[in-house]
Amino acid sequence: MKDCGSVRNIHIKIEYDGSGFHGWQFQPNVRTVQAVVEEVLSLVCAEEIHVHGTSRTDAGVHAYGQHATFPLNSAIPVDRIPVAANNILKDVKIVWAREEAPDFHARYDAVGKTYIYRIALDGLRVGAHVRSALYDSTDIFLRNYLLPVNYSLDIPAMQEAAKDFVGTHDFASFQAAGSQIIENTVRTISALTIGERTRMDTKGNTCKELLVTVTGDGFLYNMVRIIVGTLLEVGRGRKSSADIKKIIGAKDRTFAGPTASPCGLYLFEVYYNSEGR
Amino acid sequence: MKDCGSVRNIHIKIEYDGSGFHGWQFQPNVRTVQAVVEEVLSLVCAEEIHVHGTSRTDAGVHAYGQHATFPLNSAIPVDRIPVAANNILKDVKIVWAREEAPDFHARYDAVGKTYIYRIALDGLRVGAHVRSALYDSTDIFLRNYLLPVNYSLDIPAMQEAAKDFVGTHDFASFQAAGSQIIENTVRTISALTIGERTRMDTKGNTCKELLVTVTGDGFLYNMVRIIVGTLLEVGRGRKSSADIKKIIGAKDRTFAGPTASPCGLYLFEVYYNSEGR
Repeated sequence: MKDCGSVRNIHIKIEYDGSGFHGWQFQPNVRTVQAVVEEVLSLVCAEEIHVHGTSRTDAGVHAYGQHATFPLNSAIPVDRIPVAANNILKDVKIVWAREEAPDFHARYDAVGKTYIYRIALDGLRVGAHVRSALYDSTDIFLRNYLLPVNYSLDIPAMQEAAKDFVGTHDFASFQAAGSQIIENTVRTISALTIGERTRMDTKGNTCKELLVTVTGDGFLYNMVRIIVGTLLEVGRGRKSSADIKKIIGAKDRTFAGPTASPCGLYLFEVYYNSEGR
Repeated sequence: MKDCGSVRNIHIKIEYDGSGFHGWQFQPNVRTVQAVVEEVLSLVCAEEIHVHGTSRTDAGVHAYGQHATFPLNSAIPVDRIPVAANNILKDVKIVWAREEAPDFHARYDAVGKTYIYRIALDGLRVGAHVRSALYDSTDIFLRNYLLPVNYSLDIPAMQEAAKDFVGTHDFASFQAAGSQIIENTVRTISALTIGERTRMDTKGNTCKELLVTVTGDGFLYNMVRIIVGTLLEVGRGRKSSADIKKIIGAKDRTFAGPTASPCGLYLFEVYYNSEGR
């Protein structure tokens, strides 16, 4: 089937609100993005569709730029696919669809990815009332979209720490304990930036959020969440920015900080080498 | 029970994200805000709680300022109620709780309410491609929070039309067809304003939204949604701002515009007469 000359190779970019999903990857009896996308594409293309996604995002993780490829027999015009699919989809959007060369694969041909982490700094206003801080100041309309922190953050220290992640390193310390054995845990982070930005809450008030943006050639399982969990430890003074080199050097998960909540994490974009990919 | 001197009368202000609810009012077998609030308060107060809400908001309608009262036997400090309840609640927040005089009732003592309607104007950018406009420009992360429109709006015409709603009128034309017979359909709208505001979408882009704010002493069933549906008809040129007086005068639902989608509607605040209420 796959070698049949008439099979088209379709590449789609996908945006989704992860709040209502048990992550990307198909699992029986729960709602996953992959299952929803396959169901709708099968309907739209009038044939059974199976997609290969670039990243297996965790439950609750959002995406502005997930990518996937799938083989297609139908002659449906490629531009028609997002329009028809988006007519049905609610919390997922097919940003675009295009045809690729037969050997292109959304996952294996990806050369880099950017993730962003949005952290709500509003809890800081309330001061010492830690328990009520979290709830009084958290915007419930954004509960699935930003990670709330109810402690002060030393942002310059976090920015200093961020620098030591950049480069090519063995990131074994930043891989989820119990991950499948991966032979090569060396990855290259090309950029890791931490910046404050002003946002408007749903009531129209101005609030501050911390935006962590990390770009790399690939990420180990939970690597972004553990990096952010470690940066938050630096921000609250439980680790020093000087510790990052030691943590990386240890190649031991127990040296790094906790895995940050998936709340606030977005797969922002995936990069491909060729022009037009 | 109600006349027992030891029964306290607790007044709460409630915020909720209506996306995950079949409206405020209890119904069997579906998730409603009332049921969730009663369940959590019963747990927190260690007794069975039944609340009387001010407004029976429809499915999908949000609230920053729903109010409710309930009788309470427990001696729990009133300030403890929101803290304990918010520890459990996710898409509902008890903003505050306080004790009131025994005869105070959240619904019958309300003297006014403000609703807001948030309308996303981003679809306008895309121009003629009506179908794709709706989907390409809609921020899926805000799909439950703003009403998207995919046609141009004459905002000054809407603002002109808004003026004729203000005052004391018989709003029978703006009551849902098939509503229970209500003897008195006269209501007073004290303010109806329409303004553009700039918001940031979840990607950090600047977008425009239209904010409709309406305050009155009370509203008939679906009255706010029919007013907004009628204003949108004016905005797109299907009705003229001069039509409003005629529509009100007709006292006939068929003269008004369609009922706007609940998406984008928020119960913003409820007002009470007494100091401290």
